[in-house]
Amino acid sequence: MMSKWVYGFGNGKADGTAKMKALLGGKGANLAEMSQLGLAVPPGFTITTEVCTYYYANERRYPPELEAQVAAALATVEATVGARLGDPANPLLVSVRSGAPLSMPGMMDTVLNLGLNDRTVEGLANQTSNLRFAYDSYRRFIQMYGDVVLGVDHYLFEDQLDDIKRNRGYSLDTEMTAADLQELVKRYKAIVASETGAPFPEDVQAQLWGAIGAVFGSWMTARAVTYRKLQDIDEKMGTAVNVQAMVFGNRNEDCATGVAFTRNPSTGEKLYYGEFLVNAQGEDVVAGIRTPQPLTIAMQAATGSKLPSMEEVMPAAYRELAAVFDRLEAHYREMQDIEFTVQDQRLWILQTRSGKRTTQAALKIAVDLAQEGVISQAEAVGRIEPGSLDQLLHPTLDPKAERVILAKGLPASPGAVSGKIVFDADEAERQADHGEAVILVRIETSPEDIHGMHAAKGILTSRGGMTSHAAVVARGMGKPCVCAAAGLAIDYKLQRLSVGGKELKAGDEITIDGSSGEVMRGRVPTVDPQLSGDFATLMGWADQVRRLRIRTNAETPKDARTARRFGAEGIGLCRTEHMFFEGGRIVAMREMILAGDAEGRRAALAKILPMQRQDFIELFEIMAGCPVTIRLLDPPLNEFLPHGEAEMAEVAKAAGIELAALRRRASELDEANPMLGLRGCRLGILFPEIYEMQARAIFEAAIDSERASGEAVVPEVMVPLIGTARELALIKQRIDQVAAAVAKERGGQLHYQVGTMIEIPRAALCADQVAEIAQFFSFGTNDLTQMTLGLSRDDSASFLDTYMQSGIYPADPFTTLDVDGVGALVELAAERGRKTRPDLKLGICGEHGGDPATIAFCERIRLDYVSCSPYRVPIARLAAAQAVMKAHAERD
Amino acid sequence: MMSKWVYGFGNGKADGTAKMKALLGGKGANLAEMSQLGLAVPPGFTITTEVCTYYYANERRYPPELEAQVAAALATVEATVGARLGDPANPLLVSVRSGAPLSMPGMMDTVLNLGLNDRTVEGLANQTSNLRFAYDSYRRFIQMYGDVVLGVDHYLFEDQLDDIKRNRGYSLDTEMTAADLQELVKRYKAIVASETGAPFPEDVQAQLWGAIGAVFGSWMTARAVTYRKLQDIDEKMGTAVNVQAMVFGNRNEDCATGVAFTRNPSTGEKLYYGEFLVNAQGEDVVAGIRTPQPLTIAMQAATGSKLPSMEEVMPAAYRELAAVFDRLEAHYREMQDIEFTVQDQRLWILQTRSGKRTTQAALKIAVDLAQEGVISQAEAVGRIEPGSLDQLLHPTLDPKAERVILAKGLPASPGAVSGKIVFDADEAERQADHGEAVILVRIETSPEDIHGMHAAKGILTSRGGMTSHAAVVARGMGKPCVCAAAGLAIDYKLQRLSVGGKELKAGDEITIDGSSGEVMRGRVPTVDPQLSGDFATLMGWADQVRRLRIRTNAETPKDARTARRFGAEGIGLCRTEHMFFEGGRIVAMREMILAGDAEGRRAALAKILPMQRQDFIELFEIMAGCPVTIRLLDPPLNEFLPHGEAEMAEVAKAAGIELAALRRRASELDEANPMLGLRGCRLGILFPEIYEMQARAIFEAAIDSERASGEAVVPEVMVPLIGTARELALIKQRIDQVAAAVAKERGGQLHYQVGTMIEIPRAALCADQVAEIAQFFSFGTNDLTQMTLGLSRDDSASFLDTYMQSGIYPADPFTTLDVDGVGALVELAAERGRKTRPDLKLGICGEHGGDPATIAFCERIRLDYVSCSPYRVPIARLAAAQAVMKAHAERD
Repeated sequence: MMSKWVYGFGNGKADGTAKMKALLGGKGANLAEMSQLGLAVPPGFTITTEVCTYYYANERRYPPELEAQVAAALATVEATVGARLGDPANPLLVSVRSGAPLSMPGMMDTVLNLGLNDRTVEGLANQTSNLRFAYDSYRRFIQMYGDVVLGVDHYLFEDQLDDIKRNRGYSLDTEMTAADLQELVKRYKAIVASETGAPFPEDVQAQLWGAIGAVFGSWMTARAVTYRKLQDIDEKMGTAVNVQAMVFGNRNEDCATGVAFTRNPSTGEKLYYGEFLVNAQGEDVVAGIRTPQPLTIAMQAATGSKLPSMEEVMPAAYRELAAVFDRLEAHYREMQDIEFTVQDQRLWILQTRSGKRTTQAALKIAVDLAQEGVISQAEAVGRIEPGSLDQLLHPTLDPKAERVILAKGLPASPGAVSGKIVFDADEAERQADHGEAVILVRIETSPEDIHGMHAAKGILTSRGGMTSHAAVVARGMGKPCVCAAAGLAIDYKLQRLSVGGKELKAGDEITIDGSSGEVMRGRVPTVDPQLSGDFATLMGWADQVRRLRIRTNAETPKDARTARRFGAEGIGLCRTEHMFFEGGRIVAMREMILAGDAEGRRAALAKILPMQRQDFIELFEIMAGCPVTIRLLDPPLNEFLPHGEAEMAEVAKAAGIELAALRRRASELDEANPMLGLRGCRLGILFPEIYEMQARAIFEAAIDSERASGEAVVPEVMVPLIGTARELALIKQRIDQVAAAVAKERGGQLHYQVGTMIEIPRAALCADQVAEIAQFFSFGTNDLTQMTLGLSRDDSASFLDTYMQSGIYPADPFTTLDVDGVGALVELAAERGRKTRPDLKLGICGEHGGDPATIAFCERIRLDYVSCSPYRVPIARLAAAQAVMKAHAERD
Repeated sequence: MMSKWVYGFGNGKADGTAKMKALLGGKGANLAEMSQLGLAVPPGFTITTEVCTYYYANERRYPPELEAQVAAALATVEATVGARLGDPANPLLVSVRSGAPLSMPGMMDTVLNLGLNDRTVEGLANQTSNLRFAYDSYRRFIQMYGDVVLGVDHYLFEDQLDDIKRNRGYSLDTEMTAADLQELVKRYKAIVASETGAPFPEDVQAQLWGAIGAVFGSWMTARAVTYRKLQDIDEKMGTAVNVQAMVFGNRNEDCATGVAFTRNPSTGEKLYYGEFLVNAQGEDVVAGIRTPQPLTIAMQAATGSKLPSMEEVMPAAYRELAAVFDRLEAHYREMQDIEFTVQDQRLWILQTRSGKRTTQAALKIAVDLAQEGVISQAEAVGRIEPGSLDQLLHPTLDPKAERVILAKGLPASPGAVSGKIVFDADEAERQADHGEAVILVRIETSPEDIHGMHAAKGILTSRGGMTSHAAVVARGMGKPCVCAAAGLAIDYKLQRLSVGGKELKAGDEITIDGSSGEVMRGRVPTVDPQLSGDFATLMGWADQVRRLRIRTNAETPKDARTARRFGAEGIGLCRTEHMFFEGGRIVAMREMILAGDAEGRRAALAKILPMQRQDFIELFEIMAGCPVTIRLLDPPLNEFLPHGEAEMAEVAKAAGIELAALRRRASELDEANPMLGLRGCRLGILFPEIYEMQARAIFEAAIDSERASGEAVVPEVMVPLIGTARELALIKQRIDQVAAAVAKERGGQLHYQVGTMIEIPRAALCADQVAEIAQFFSFGTNDLTQMTLGLSRDDSASFLDTYMQSGIYPADPFTTLDVDGVGALVELAAERGRKTRPDLKLGICGEHGGDPATIAFCERIRLDYVSCSPYRVPIARLAAAQAVMKAHAERD
């Protein structure tokens, strides 16, 4: 059997369908589909991706049958159009375009008007009675072909165009006369001859094969190769080539061209939406030189346009177009973005594809389509990009507002906000108390800054990555944050910052956009988020599909309430250390750290106990009926000590301790690599009284809270930084003792679980042993990523960009779980843990818990829940639903 | 069939043998064996470990048959001795001792003279015509039994003994008369009655079962339980109880007691060696109150003793004893440590066991025994504890010298040395240049101190663990080092240190012992190491057995030569960064770091190139014919920048750069967790010119060196800190390009390999991918341990002791590989790597490379080589041989 290398379309027929994207590329398959639907698609043919594969497997030679098949397909097109390629009397013009199965930058794009030469241009002029049109088409062809096929620098052509315009005193291209364009064609051909050493090809077959070769050649340009490597796209996929008859919207006043959406892409409203121009080319609509006209009378009214609509100007073509809209939307079951041209009163459809839209529109369209019965509810759930929901939950910059961008950093926590610059947490609190909106600007933040971060409207740092302290805490609080703003130099002493030669001082207003990472001068207006009913509807549908439970990382009542409102089903990570910075607690905490013995530590901890108990009572009440996982103290103790000299002196004085003693203790606690030092359960082993106090606060709160509300409370006590089973066994023993003591003292019944973070690689490797003690695992993927990759999240900002650009990591491993490395360890730990304890509860509580790609991985390895910051809960709910659908699809 | 719970021995017969240690315990099995050999062992019986197991499985009850079996065994003993337990006319006295299969502290030890009561004591007095002896035996029995069986505090007894001595004006126990001892027995019985509420048991059967119960009870004391947990000893093993007839060396002048070795335990010479005392008990020989007499005439002459030898005083017993020595050494095929007693001219053997000895003696004895044909060469190899060789390679403190210990730290690098205190590396170099012996004393060291460490005789730090910079470098240099000396406070400004209330200043002399961790005031005399021919012989035998190759970690010619002399078979780790601190290099290095662009960096690196090339030429020449693995630059760049303000200013001035620029760059490079930051291959990705220079230096040196010597050089280029295969691929590509360029320029042939350190957990997990690029893996177990355990080696000193005491880690994981965690990862990486590339070369180059337990693991998983610091090469050679033997034994 002879291979079929070429697939024709047009005239209500086609050899291919929309399903044949792998063979025909996206564009070719869609053209075939529309043709099959009987739509007026300019006829043409597609040379398949298999030709590309053959070409590279055979030293850039084509299959022997190709030439004949192309000739035959071309003949069909000629017959359909009633014109012949290269016929001086009645020339057929074609476009040649690449079309890979996946859209890919770096490939040859388009050559238009192919088939023109010194003779056919005269034929076109005669045929259209438009010499200027013919030569304008010709010069455009030479320029495009010269650039993309022959590799002549396009600036050379533009220079000549500008030269003629300058000599004639023109300001617009449209002022050029037919004679000017004839002159320009002459000059263009001279450029090609001198640059390539050969005249511009007059032979139309040579033109055609040159363009086809250029498309296949562009598959292997360095840029395309790199892109595929980065995107992990198979090189063998290949590209197709589409050859299609030209139609023109710019021949005369009976011609027009336009772009339309089947629904409003901004709001999602079910109304045709689009623009068109009479006697114009496609690029004129978007170029903004002429003002496009509205498509419909309704739109004309809505936009207040003074220009007549297509519905009025070309009623027949419009009616035909409206019918096409309905046909295509029904066929593709999705809002379509359609390009069309009217040539001599006849409508041609050039392209259809899913229309881009705002998140708000996407929600409305998906819900509407489901309610119209066009798609299922599950399909509607699958139509929304989970990450896009962020836009709906946070204020955004007013798109119309002007802005002066000072710097760009990492978009660390979404939302846009303005405020006065403050360099200090205490000052932030003070000013916020006086009703000022402030942005806390720090080199980096530490737990000591928490109160200032709470008080500020937003946070800006000059250092730290997407999972730096500032970023993590800000996301937890749902506050906008920009980290590692490039070129930002902060001087605390002089209370000013400099960036790009500009200086700002404390009190100056700035605006930050945590969704884009932009830092702007002054106050840029923002738009508040509005959650539509469609949001709730879609979330409800998602909840019916998903299997994973969604919990939140929260420790304050405010965050816990926010998360509940967004649909969190419990707390997956309550970081108790965040509770130690407020008010009198930090004083007691420091007293504890400075105490010389266990007795002294116990005395200080006794002061914290009632406050900590009250914290838990509140959380248990807000999360009534839901699980609450409480992580015992984790950070190194010196995070609780003051740092600068002045601050030290102040604290020493306030606490009535010697400055020297404070300084000595701080220096004792100073560590070369604090991430890997004395923290987590190591504190619990060395100073058992700390965890004993915390366990007591948890258990007393559980009994009190259960007694008050009648609602059962089952706290999950989580021990951080476990490396060996024995560490956990020693600590669990003490927790159990405290539980027994509290139950006896308070006369209540206690139900609780003790489990561990899996965040040290060793714990993952020895999960079988750890699971003998632990009743649940929560993968702390932040630290697990740091240790497994040997990559400090605070220090990697300086090279992680280069790493991603070089394809070493496909994405930021602190945002999307590194499935090959960290994921392998998580999977291994889950397996080994479940082997020991089949009902082991498994969750993830790192920053990754709110990342859709990571959630898909969690679904695949069948974790029980993910936990993320409150503002990511809706994203996680949606992503979890999509993960189930994806897993089903992969299984089928 | 009735269970046999009791095994008798004595009278030239025994129910058991030396092989039955699990059932009879070590002591019981040995007594049975000697009895079987026909030696004069006082008769007795062993109650088996199975009784212990039964006892704990059955609520502390004995098997029903036990009582009858004990009675029968006792009757046999009575018949053999010709006396009866409790017979007032002719009383048998017995000892009761515990005896577990493995020696275990915390267990009940011994009760002697059991069977004495108010009536039998009189019988003993009559029989021996020695009232004083009888009552002395009685009071000793009450005290021992009261203490270990009845739980009476032994101080109460000692108080009464002291009281009588004080009242009578005695200074020695021996001055006490029979009447005094009778009075003492009365007081002792009163103490027991008042402390236990019951009279001291007169019933000898009650005495016997009380002692047996005490032995079994002691199996479960907290101390024994903890010890077993720490040593991972199975609780079900249980202990045996030995009941044995007493013999006395202190009845009269025809009695004697002594301790002897079959060879000299200090030198290994083949001469009987021992001491004895007439009319004395075993404890008198070791107590030092009476001066013991030499065993032989030869020993009398050698030691210049004025006292007559046993050979002269008791010639018959001596001849008998000498025969026993030969018999036992031949039987056990090992130098024996023997306890004996002569009672009324009759020789009794009480114990034999392998004798403890110095390392020097151990070597000589093992080699001699092999050459005498007693043991095989392999057995000789197995007899030496590899770690003990350290003693032979380094100076040790003169054991006779007095010492004032100031502090104790970690024994970080063995050897003892004295010198003047110097607090600064430059000053150390200056003084060393003037011929002073100095000890460099630092809070901790950094690569900037290398020249000072080279100049100093030893290094003392107040911080840092066994694998801190100071420790690692010092071991590499073979210099004594004590780290983290407790309580040592160093004040650089005042140039003094204080410890335990004492102050020392720069210039004061101290002595450090890196084998014990002790820091001493003044100059303590030391003894130089001497390597005997036995050492070389045994090493040669070890080399015939081992499979693992032994390489060394070295970068200086001196270290490389030392390692070769010790038998290293190549370099496994040459840390190139150590080459960047000397002379003008550090200046060029800083220039490179401060350069604003690649061009500036290249210019600075060009200055280093010829020096680096020369380094490699030297190493290739010293290691002629052996592989040399060169690790490319690894540490963070700011390790090369000055730190203090003063030093910064100095450097800035010297280099002609602005202080502000230097400060800015240093602060840019400052990291929160430098271990996980911009270092290793990340530098190679960001600044490719660095590795390009290093690769060029390596390849140029290889060609030049091969050309000069005619010896093939195959450098192994090792890329550090690889996390993903793509990192290595990108860097290998550049290395290959440099190699091709150098080969072309110099017109030579280049053979080389490119491989990687596996030191990031991710690289281990993805070893299958990494092995697609890497031709060898070298496990960097220092960093791999830090990351897998989440444990900074510099920061863990503060809690690692507690961790080991709590049994969380059985040993320091930076000394002995954590097999469960890190080992699992190494094994997994080895498997996955070999799957991709079956001939993948695998080695280990962390500090663990010189640790015997780790070497056994490396043998088990069939690595190709281990690499360790020069002074550990002999240890590694021996350990590798023993690992093979162990693996064989486990397979059989």
